[in-house]
Amino acid sequence: MDLSRRELLAATGAAALGNFGQDKPVGWAVLGLGGYATRNILPNFKHCKHSRLVSLITGTPEKGKQYGAQYGIPENKIYDYKNLEKIANDPDIDVVYVITPPGTHHEYVMRALKAGKHVSCEKPMTGDLKQAIEMVEEAKKRNKRLGVGYRCHFEPHNLEALRLCKEGKLGTIRYIRSDHGFTLGDWSQWHHKRAIGGFGAISEIGIYAIQAMCMFAGADPVEVIGTRDKSSNKLFKEVEDSNHFTLVFPNGITGQGATSYSWNANNVRIYGNAGRIDAEPATGYENHQFTLNGQPMIPNEANQWALQMDHLSQCIRDPKMVLRTGGDMGLRDVRIMDAILRSADAGGKPIRL
Amino acid sequence: MDLSRRELLAATGAAALGNFGQDKPVGWAVLGLGGYATRNILPNFKHCKHSRLVSLITGTPEKGKQYGAQYGIPENKIYDYKNLEKIANDPDIDVVYVITPPGTHHEYVMRALKAGKHVSCEKPMTGDLKQAIEMVEEAKKRNKRLGVGYRCHFEPHNLEALRLCKEGKLGTIRYIRSDHGFTLGDWSQWHHKRAIGGFGAISEIGIYAIQAMCMFAGADPVEVIGTRDKSSNKLFKEVEDSNHFTLVFPNGITGQGATSYSWNANNVRIYGNAGRIDAEPATGYENHQFTLNGQPMIPNEANQWALQMDHLSQCIRDPKMVLRTGGDMGLRDVRIMDAILRSADAGGKPIRL
Repeated sequence: MDLSRRELLAATGAAALGNFGQDKPVGWAVLGLGGYATRNILPNFKHCKHSRLVSLITGTPEKGKQYGAQYGIPENKIYDYKNLEKIANDPDIDVVYVITPPGTHHEYVMRALKAGKHVSCEKPMTGDLKQAIEMVEEAKKRNKRLGVGYRCHFEPHNLEALRLCKEGKLGTIRYIRSDHGFTLGDWSQWHHKRAIGGFGAISEIGIYAIQAMCMFAGADPVEVIGTRDKSSNKLFKEVEDSNHFTLVFPNGITGQGATSYSWNANNVRIYGNAGRIDAEPATGYENHQFTLNGQPMIPNEANQWALQMDHLSQCIRDPKMVLRTGGDMGLRDVRIMDAILRSADAGGKPIRL
Repeated sequence: MDLSRRELLAATGAAALGNFGQDKPVGWAVLGLGGYATRNILPNFKHCKHSRLVSLITGTPEKGKQYGAQYGIPENKIYDYKNLEKIANDPDIDVVYVITPPGTHHEYVMRALKAGKHVSCEKPMTGDLKQAIEMVEEAKKRNKRLGVGYRCHFEPHNLEALRLCKEGKLGTIRYIRSDHGFTLGDWSQWHHKRAIGGFGAISEIGIYAIQAMCMFAGADPVEVIGTRDKSSNKLFKEVEDSNHFTLVFPNGITGQGATSYSWNANNVRIYGNAGRIDAEPATGYENHQFTLNGQPMIPNEANQWALQMDHLSQCIRDPKMVLRTGGDMGLRDVRIMDAILRSADAGGKPIRL
C-alpha cells in the first residue's frame, strides 16, 4: 500500500487510533495472574517503551492485592473475572493481555473485545478451531487488534536467524526441523485436561515447532501429515501426549517435527543448500544457543516480552502498522494443529489445508 | 538356543565351518578399488585379528598393481572383474568384499556367491527390492554368509549409545530422529545415475538414519510415511534428492528423519522419557560427538572397519554366531526405502510393511 499516513487514517477512520497520540504509552490490563504472567509479563513492563501496566484482572482477590501492591496498581484498577465487563468504562485500559489456561482464552478474549478493548492472547490461542475463528471475527468486527503471544517473533536470536535466512546466508532453505517437548510432571494442573488445556503437548509446546517452521519458511503450509505416539502414559486420557508431523510448504520447503509431554526438547534446525542454523534452546526464555554453520550467533540481547508488548502497543496506536503475530496467525496455527490431529486420526493420511 | 557348540556343529553340518579352524584368519578379497575401499578398507586390515587381505579384484589393472604392491598381494591373487569366476579355484579367498557403486552390487554379489565364496556387501545393498531378495536367497541356498557393510553397528560411540539405551539410561525410548544428507558436488560420478547409484540420497546417506532408528528402537518398523522434496535441483532426473520419512515401530517408538543431496547433516537424537542422547557427527568415519543429557560420552576408541570385518570373519568360522548385519537386515532396509518412496509417490500415504 502506498497511502500516506494521513490518507490511511482518513480511510480507516481516526477512531482506530483510539484516545492517544504517538507518544502516550498504551495502557495494559493483565488478565490471569499465574506463573507466566507474574514471572514473565508483569516484571517486563519496566522494559517497555510504549506499554504501561495499568490494571490487573484476576479470579483470586489475594493475588490482585499482592501484585497490585508490587506494581503500584491502585485498588480501583484491579478487576475480578466476574465483573470484567466494567473495564469498558475504564479509559486507561487500552488492551487486555489474556494469560489464562488455553481452554479459557476464548471466553476472556471475547469478553474483553466486547468490552471495547484490544486484546493480546497468550499462545496457544485455543485448542478449538471454531473458537479461534470466532475470536478473529469478533476482533475484525469491532476493529480491534488481536495479538497472539508469539514471543519468538521478537526474540533476538530468532530474529537474527530470520535475518540470515532472508539474506540468503543458508542458500536456498530446503528443510526445517524442530522438536519441542517437556516431561509433564505436575498432574495437579490443567495441562492434561482437554477443557482447559487445549489440544495437549502439541498446542502447549509443539506450537513452537510449527511456529518456527512457518516463520523460517516464510510461508504457510499447504499440506500436513500427522501421527500419534501409541505408547502414551495412561494418564493421557483427554489430551495429546506425543505427535509427529510433516508440513509441506508451497515454496518447496518441508518442515518436520515432533512434540511430547514425555520427553524434553527445544530445538530448531534450518537446512539450506549452502548452510545450516542449529538452535537449542531455540525458543526458551533465556540462554538461547544458535549457531550458523557451527559458529555461535551472538545477537544483541533484548527483552523479548517487552518487544512483543510494545509491538502490539504500536500497532494499536498506528492502524498502518502490520501486526506481526495477529489473530490470523493464531488461527492458522490452530488450523495446522487441527489438521495434524485429523491426519493422525486417519492413521497418517495427508490433509490439504 | 541351548545347543552346545558340538551339537550345533553336528546339526548344521561341519561343512559350514569351511576349511579353517578357529585361529586361522579368514581370507578376504576386496572387489572394487574406489575411494572407500582404498581409504577405509584396505588400510584397516592391519587392525584386524581374524581377517587377512589376500586378494584384490578390480576392473582397472593399474589399480590392481598399485594396491597389490602397497599391500603385498602377489600378482596371481589379483583378479579382473571379467575373470572373477576364477576365484572359485582359489582356496585362500574365503570372502569377497564388494565395494562398487550400489547399482552393481547385485551382479558382483551373485557372482561371488556362485563362485562359492562368502560375501560382504557394502551398503546400500541395492536400490532394487527384487535384487535384494535374490542376493539373500542365493546366500541362503549356498549356505554362505552375506554381510552388509553397516559399520555403525561396530562403531564404539554408537555401541556405547546402544548400551545406554538397553540399560534404560534414557528411560522408555519414545522417539528417534535422524537427518543425514550431504551436498552432492561432483556430477561426474555415479551418485545421481539410477542404474548404478541406487535410489539416490536415501540409499546412499539416508540409510544411516533408517539404520539408526531401527538399531536404537531395537525393532523393525511396521509402517512408513514418506514425502519427497519438490524443489529439487534440475540435475536430479534419475534419483531421489530429498526425502522425509516417519517410521512407526511396533514397540511404540516413532522414528522421523530426512535425507538429501542438497544439505549437510549427520545426526541422531534419541528421546526417552528420562533422558536424551544427541549425536553429530553420529555415523561418520571419525570425530563422533555423542552426549547423554548434554554430557559427552567417551567410549573406548576402536577401529569400526576392523571390527566389522572381524565380526563377519568370526561368523564365517563359527556357524553358531549370529551375524549382526546380515543380508536380511540389508533387505529389510531396501524394503523400508522402497516403501518410503512408494508412500512419497502416493503423496504421503502410509504404507504398511
